[in-house]
Amino acid sequence: MANERKAVIVGAGLVGALWAVILAKRGYQVDVYERRADFRQAGYVGGRSINLALSERGWKAVEIAGIREKIEAVAIPMPGRMMHGTDGALTYQPYGEEGQAIYSVSRGGLNIELVNIADEFSQVRFHFNQACLGVDLDNSSVRFEDTRTGVQYAIESDLIFGTDGAFSPVRQSLQKLPRFNYSQQYIDYGYKELCIPPNEDETHRMHTNGLHIWPRGQFMLIALPNVDGSFTCTLFLPFEGEASFENLKSEVQVMAFFEKYFPDVIPLMPTLVQDFAENPTSALVTVRCNPWHYHHKILLLGDAAHAIVPFFGQGMNCGFEDCTILDSLMDKYEENWPAIMEEFSANRPEDSNAIADLALLNFIEMRDKVADPKFLLWKKSKSTCTSGSRRSFNRCIQW
Amino acid sequence: MANERKAVIVGAGLVGALWAVILAKRGYQVDVYERRADFRQAGYVGGRSINLALSERGWKAVEIAGIREKIEAVAIPMPGRMMHGTDGALTYQPYGEEGQAIYSVSRGGLNIELVNIADEFSQVRFHFNQACLGVDLDNSSVRFEDTRTGVQYAIESDLIFGTDGAFSPVRQSLQKLPRFNYSQQYIDYGYKELCIPPNEDETHRMHTNGLHIWPRGQFMLIALPNVDGSFTCTLFLPFEGEASFENLKSEVQVMAFFEKYFPDVIPLMPTLVQDFAENPTSALVTVRCNPWHYHHKILLLGDAAHAIVPFFGQGMNCGFEDCTILDSLMDKYEENWPAIMEEFSANRPEDSNAIADLALLNFIEMRDKVADPKFLLWKKSKSTCTSGSRRSFNRCIQW
Repeated sequence: MANERKAVIVGAGLVGALWAVILAKRGYQVDVYERRADFRQAGYVGGRSINLALSERGWKAVEIAGIREKIEAVAIPMPGRMMHGTDGALTYQPYGEEGQAIYSVSRGGLNIELVNIADEFSQVRFHFNQACLGVDLDNSSVRFEDTRTGVQYAIESDLIFGTDGAFSPVRQSLQKLPRFNYSQQYIDYGYKELCIPPNEDETHRMHTNGLHIWPRGQFMLIALPNVDGSFTCTLFLPFEGEASFENLKSEVQVMAFFEKYFPDVIPLMPTLVQDFAENPTSALVTVRCNPWHYHHKILLLGDAAHAIVPFFGQGMNCGFEDCTILDSLMDKYEENWPAIMEEFSANRPEDSNAIADLALLNFIEMRDKVADPKFLLWKKSKSTCTSGSRRSFNRCIQW
Repeated sequence: MANERKAVIVGAGLVGALWAVILAKRGYQVDVYERRADFRQAGYVGGRSINLALSERGWKAVEIAGIREKIEAVAIPMPGRMMHGTDGALTYQPYGEEGQAIYSVSRGGLNIELVNIADEFSQVRFHFNQACLGVDLDNSSVRFEDTRTGVQYAIESDLIFGTDGAFSPVRQSLQKLPRFNYSQQYIDYGYKELCIPPNEDETHRMHTNGLHIWPRGQFMLIALPNVDGSFTCTLFLPFEGEASFENLKSEVQVMAFFEKYFPDVIPLMPTLVQDFAENPTSALVTVRCNPWHYHHKILLLGDAAHAIVPFFGQGMNCGFEDCTILDSLMDKYEENWPAIMEEFSANRPEDSNAIADLALLNFIEMRDKVADPKFLLWKKSKSTCTSGSRRSFNRCIQW
């Protein structure tokens, strides 16, 4: 029986790789197809990633996969946030009680670790360099192109998981179905990855165990620690307007902007100007769709089903939670996939939509707060950011 | 100068054909590509159309094209609506003052007429059997496949209009752009085309000059007259639930349903059972997107930009109004297309979104009204549908 159960996973990203582990542990034969080259050899293409904060919601799935210790090895606990004022003053705020933390993980590092763990199962096979071209809904097969040879082919399966991200080709095929509801909405802000490299002795150049935030009202910079001693930094900024990416085209403009708003960062970022020019300015999208499954054979998970903006730090965690819920539904329905998919697709979107809304609302609130004198007062005064006013701070930055 | 101005129109539907006429009148060389075979020879494929009600909003564009008389020849004035009670009683309500009317046009008849009119211009060329595969945004070209030969090719143009309908391939290409907002939302109702053929002497079997409605609370049937003496009928019904398409699978079920709710229609529809089985059950979608243009070279119009549900009778009229507004912007900006597209794409979506909302709201109101005792009272009593209560009737059926 165990050998008869087969599944195809489209996309070896975070959710796809974790889901492969969970299915493999249950005895499924899993084939994972991935557009990119094997990033364990080819290197993880960076330049547009935002570091992730693994929270309880995500750890649950990691525990179900039985790999908590392995993931902890690439994760850095952040028991609090470190706010950087324009004057360089630091304010540290614990997130919760002693021992509680969210965990910084680099997308690349975590993805490589998850693929390695999945690859240890004999019944998991990874197929890299295989770009999904879409799904043939009639015969439940996925079309791929080998990006090295150009050869196109189709793989049939009665159990196909689309974990192929916010721009999912699997979902694009579903989108052509009558009665498939779909929405992609961008906000007017973009983001750019920047980097604070390690010291020569591979230690961090700032406090290691914290999520660093430079809140500046209409925009902000964040920095999350990596295990190699570096920080992955992300600048969130409007595309257009006075302080915007549109107005940061030249080296001089970039330096003047950082000198004005982030002076303490400049000495920590030796490649600032270069990174700013070379790394893309990426957009931030919310994707909602329904239904998530097709004929009980094809199911969307993670960003493919519900991409959200990052201001709640819950994108990956929600995708991992999809795995947790599916795992419990597999128990509940004894791996009867029609029943599992029906319940999952009927109930889960409400939760993911709620988190999508919270992420957007929080961003709007944060953006609007700048016009509020209380917010400006809070920015000027470290004291308002401690003890009593944590709630108001939380409203501004949910990370 | 006049001969240098060229445009490509993707889609020879209602808006595409009308827009070709308006551009041709201004001296543009226009190439219109259409996926379908020439419906003037091949016949217009019916079975899933809803007759259209041309209103003032739409006539304006027809007048700009200088073809009012030709369109009036295929349009039947409907100065009022004729409501059919379950007991067969008829109630006629004028829409407005003496001489005011909306005009019934069959989609096929109007489309053929518009293509014929456009074809009279020497500088308009129609290319049928050419399926759009998408747009290459980098070099502003449209990819087509000749559906008879399978040959694929691309046409470059600095002025491309996507009038290719609610499932627009042109829009699908734009949808992959960062910061392209897009939404397709279906309602839980479907529709099915049915037919009341003419009498043997080619006269109408019901009152000619009226929009016939059989309102039944949760669902309704409508019938609009055609110039050949027939009526195109449309049944709007939930996909699932007690009274639903799901429960109308057999001949017996269909007949029982019509005998219960539309007994007066049965003798008028000799092919009812056959039509019900053969014509598809189609879905009703609202499409919203933004921006409508790309690099001032590609512009979406009509359903490709803003498909709406039919309960306001404004889908085609809105598409025609796009043409009216663009025509006035061509005057305002002296055919400076970047300026025209900027203003059109910045302002027009707000109006089309408003109409999309009204169409949906009206449908929700209509659907919910059934639980309202006043609505039931209104259904039972002809008198409440005349004189004083026109407003409440209008709330229920906006046509």
